[in-house]
Amino acid sequence: MADLKKLFYPSSIAVVGASRNPKKIGHLILKNLIEYGYKSRIYPVNPAADEVLGLKAYPSVSSIPEPVDVVVVSVPAPKVPEVIEDAGKAGAKFAVIISSGFKEVGNVELEKKVVETARKYGMRVLGPNIFGYVYTPSRINATFGPRDVIPGGVAFITQSGALGIALMGTTIMEGIGVSAIISIGNKADLDDADFLEFFENDPNTNIVLIYLEGITNGRRFVEAASRVTIKKPIVVIKSGRTEAGARAAASHTGSLAGNIAFYETAFKQSGILFAKSVEEAFDWVKALTWNPLPNSDRIVVITNGGGAGVQASDTLADNGLLLQKPPKNLVEEIRKFVPPFASLANPIDLTGMAPTDWYYKAVYAALNDPDVDSIVVLYCHTALTHPVEVADAIMNAVKDSGGLKKPMTVALIGGVEAYEGIKKLTQAKIPAYPTPERAAAAMAAIHRYVKYREYVTKRLSYLGGS
Amino acid sequence: MADLKKLFYPSSIAVVGASRNPKKIGHLILKNLIEYGYKSRIYPVNPAADEVLGLKAYPSVSSIPEPVDVVVVSVPAPKVPEVIEDAGKAGAKFAVIISSGFKEVGNVELEKKVVETARKYGMRVLGPNIFGYVYTPSRINATFGPRDVIPGGVAFITQSGALGIALMGTTIMEGIGVSAIISIGNKADLDDADFLEFFENDPNTNIVLIYLEGITNGRRFVEAASRVTIKKPIVVIKSGRTEAGARAAASHTGSLAGNIAFYETAFKQSGILFAKSVEEAFDWVKALTWNPLPNSDRIVVITNGGGAGVQASDTLADNGLLLQKPPKNLVEEIRKFVPPFASLANPIDLTGMAPTDWYYKAVYAALNDPDVDSIVVLYCHTALTHPVEVADAIMNAVKDSGGLKKPMTVALIGGVEAYEGIKKLTQAKIPAYPTPERAAAAMAAIHRYVKYREYVTKRLSYLGGS
Repeated sequence: MADLKKLFYPSSIAVVGASRNPKKIGHLILKNLIEYGYKSRIYPVNPAADEVLGLKAYPSVSSIPEPVDVVVVSVPAPKVPEVIEDAGKAGAKFAVIISSGFKEVGNVELEKKVVETARKYGMRVLGPNIFGYVYTPSRINATFGPRDVIPGGVAFITQSGALGIALMGTTIMEGIGVSAIISIGNKADLDDADFLEFFENDPNTNIVLIYLEGITNGRRFVEAASRVTIKKPIVVIKSGRTEAGARAAASHTGSLAGNIAFYETAFKQSGILFAKSVEEAFDWVKALTWNPLPNSDRIVVITNGGGAGVQASDTLADNGLLLQKPPKNLVEEIRKFVPPFASLANPIDLTGMAPTDWYYKAVYAALNDPDVDSIVVLYCHTALTHPVEVADAIMNAVKDSGGLKKPMTVALIGGVEAYEGIKKLTQAKIPAYPTPERAAAAMAAIHRYVKYREYVTKRLSYLGGS
Repeated sequence: MADLKKLFYPSSIAVVGASRNPKKIGHLILKNLIEYGYKSRIYPVNPAADEVLGLKAYPSVSSIPEPVDVVVVSVPAPKVPEVIEDAGKAGAKFAVIISSGFKEVGNVELEKKVVETARKYGMRVLGPNIFGYVYTPSRINATFGPRDVIPGGVAFITQSGALGIALMGTTIMEGIGVSAIISIGNKADLDDADFLEFFENDPNTNIVLIYLEGITNGRRFVEAASRVTIKKPIVVIKSGRTEAGARAAASHTGSLAGNIAFYETAFKQSGILFAKSVEEAFDWVKALTWNPLPNSDRIVVITNGGGAGVQASDTLADNGLLLQKPPKNLVEEIRKFVPPFASLANPIDLTGMAPTDWYYKAVYAALNDPDVDSIVVLYCHTALTHPVEVADAIMNAVKDSGGLKKPMTVALIGGVEAYEGIKKLTQAKIPAYPTPERAAAAMAAIHRYVKYREYVTKRLSYLGGS
């Protein structure tokens, strides 16, 4: 098992290829590193400059006055071995190799040489062919992606470069806080399993999201993932889920994306939540990272539109979750203020005439009913209410209940005003979506994870395991 | 077959229950009608007012100096029969009954009475229990939903009220132009089939979207839908797709949502595109209303990120669409400017270093290659380019090709900047999405529709039919 402590909590980081040209990747990485607020020592390495971005530059890693923990390398591929040799000699612990031009374009030998050189000095390698890495607890943003990633509980490992950078931007827009972002690239040395082992015990991470193209050591991956999912959920987007997709992946990465059935089985066995799309994955991650876990699956759906309620019921049923009768006390509570024709089966329909304070009362009642395990709140924008006021009502119900003690997802359906409401809920870390199906599917992901965990925990205790 | 001409092209519209109180539904409808710009005569009916919103008010429909074509009724349910009686006597042709409190709450007799009264005078009824209707070619917005619906080719029929109004807002936000929005409610008289018959021959409508809870006359619906789908696509969201959802629908509308297998068969037979979610439906509608139809299914995917390309390949494969080798000429054209390691199989990977003008060149080449039937363009936001500039490049390629002569969908993946680009493309009526899977699924819907239509057209010509 790789000890990644010094990668995530380094005392010093060197950036080799830290150009003064603001268009160069080495420059962009150094800039992010400085501006995102990494507090320890940063050393630009550039033989042609005395200083870069206000920091004294060094001609080589070995000329830096201390052995650095992390060396970020952004120089042309053929020059990488000598940089690694020099860094290794100088006692560096991790090489984060941004440079491309290795196995992904057929240069297998060059990649091998780099890893062998690093090994010689006990140095571990992340990459090559990556956009860098982020660890927010240490204020490290050593990427050429967006700067202002939001600190939070999601560790995101991505094998895809361009898509990974784009999704960094998505996390910011969606208000999803991350602990780490790892561009894992060619995985010449460190791979998913190594990082899973770290995140398993990382108190700053409460969920792991992986964009996976392929794994070389399937057994090790399954073992690591199975240990993690006992403690925290893993969501995986598997590139090349279909034969056709796998062929596309093969022509992209040069390595076969592998047997599809194998991955499906592996994911199932290790309790991984398998997302078919980027959107699905992010929807689930938002629900999982901000919510506590439910005790059981007595879900209540609250709506002001029958149609929205039915859509949510359909989606829950697609996921094997059938709505049960809502608890009697809750029904009695809600009966007090809704019109007599309101259907209080599950979904609980507050009717289209529901003002914002009915949302407050209904959500408050559901949050405080011990026989409700989780809540899906749906709101259709009508002429009577403003989505932002409904968002406020929901937030107040949560606040007055002392915070979220059971999971909740919300859908605000409508136009731009609904989006404003979604934004507001998101800022308050209440997962909100623009359609009933997405809110229901995200809740279903939570329940699927809990069911898996219960099953495994029981089996482990039966076997006398942990 | 109902002749709906005067409903959509009325010479005059009366609004019964046109209150001066700005919170009342009758007021909101009158206001929308005036402000959205209906150019013919509008008569507020209100026995307690001389004028409403600057228009002379009348105490009853029969006191209006001409027989009106459309009477919009927003008075309490028990008062509806007398309004209908009076309007019928006065020669009104259509009653649009907004009022609720009929069959949906068990008042079956009251609803029957209303329809019988209308029939007596040859008047047809839309509703009751609806939020109104829109027909943009006549600048009619007789709803209490959002005012500024965008004129365009989508006819939207919705059985759900609150969800329907909310989705009106969604059309505006997503820039989706509509010809009509029909809140169909209890369908006491006019039903989906009547409107399908109108939209079949309506030159202002190029696609029909239906939110369907249930149908009473299945055979008539299938016949009408089958005729429409030869000319233009129909997308249906069926509420209560699952047993559980159907039960929820039953408790909401009081009527069973019906046998699920029946609907699936009916949709398949009539060439309806069956969407599982609101988002899916809107994604498909956007792609179908703005695009021409492809000749065949030689789809080309263009991307700057291998991962995004694989995701799209997977989604296309889910829909039975397998990417073929791209045409030789296109590959040669693109080979001229991309780096040698770029994978030019399908997906065509411009690589992460692609500047905006590579997008221009690649999209232009694909648009003008006779062996390309449709194009899915994917872009991951990287440090090198701005999504809005990429959107511009794509728009310019379309413009310089003389407009879209084959279908295209686009995904711009990233953060807020990507959303800006999506907005810009959308304004130019190029369907754009935030994820590769949604762009691919929307393209797949186009190809599924074309396949169905080809099959039916061949069968019809073989049978000697039209």
